[in-house]
Amino acid sequence: MHFDHAGIATDDAQTLAELYGDLFGLESVHEEEFDGLRVVFLECGDGYFELLEPLEEGTISRYLETNGAGIHHLALATDDIESALETAREHEVSLIDEEPRPGAWGHSVAFLHPKDTGGILIELVEH
Amino acid sequence: MHFDHAGIATDDAQTLAELYGDLFGLESVHEEEFDGLRVVFLECGDGYFELLEPLEEGTISRYLETNGAGIHHLALATDDIESALETAREHEVSLIDEEPRPGAWGHSVAFLHPKDTGGILIELVEH
Repeated sequence: MHFDHAGIATDDAQTLAELYGDLFGLESVHEEEFDGLRVVFLECGDGYFELLEPLEEGTISRYLETNGAGIHHLALATDDIESALETAREHEVSLIDEEPRPGAWGHSVAFLHPKDTGGILIELVEH
Repeated sequence: MHFDHAGIATDDAQTLAELYGDLFGLESVHEEEFDGLRVVFLECGDGYFELLEPLEEGTISRYLETNGAGIHHLALATDDIESALETAREHEVSLIDEEPRPGAWGHSVAFLHPKDTGGILIELVEH
């Protein structure tokens, strides 16, 4: 597997996208509203920063209330998400998503519980 | 600039490296003791997960006490770190490192203050 993106919780994706464009030359390559979020992907090499701005109450709005803006998760790309989930099950990793579900940008995604992955919320992504 | 690594604070880099090897097929490609830390780089595509385990009191041990294990920072690679710092200064971003300093793996690094970068601790890295 390889790095796909870092998910970043923010109150204002547009402003953060412009700042990261100015500071680091990162370009916005995809934007959409998905699952109650404004989602902006900034290209950074082979991977992305995924900016997540809540448009309604949900996981990310609660994360922001508790933690403030910050890095929410890390995503790894796989060619076979079903097999990756099976490997996680074999290692007794708690799955937030027992089966892949539709994610942003039309990808298939599943999250693993951070309690079994060293405190890191890991998202598996199949493009 | 492009994604270089995600810095991950952990109490046990060796165990986490083995778990991420088993779960995700990530390989440890560099290990060293640096600045009071055991540092393990796991290759994931063009970038890395940088596992940071404190061997003595310091920034990472305090981070772990306050937050527990988790994602500590995101690093972007640049060919010209001096110029990247100058750009940050022009945008009135607070610099944790006014000048580049030696980082892990022999790289030149500088951190930007998260209060001016959307809550994300950003490390600039020149290889």
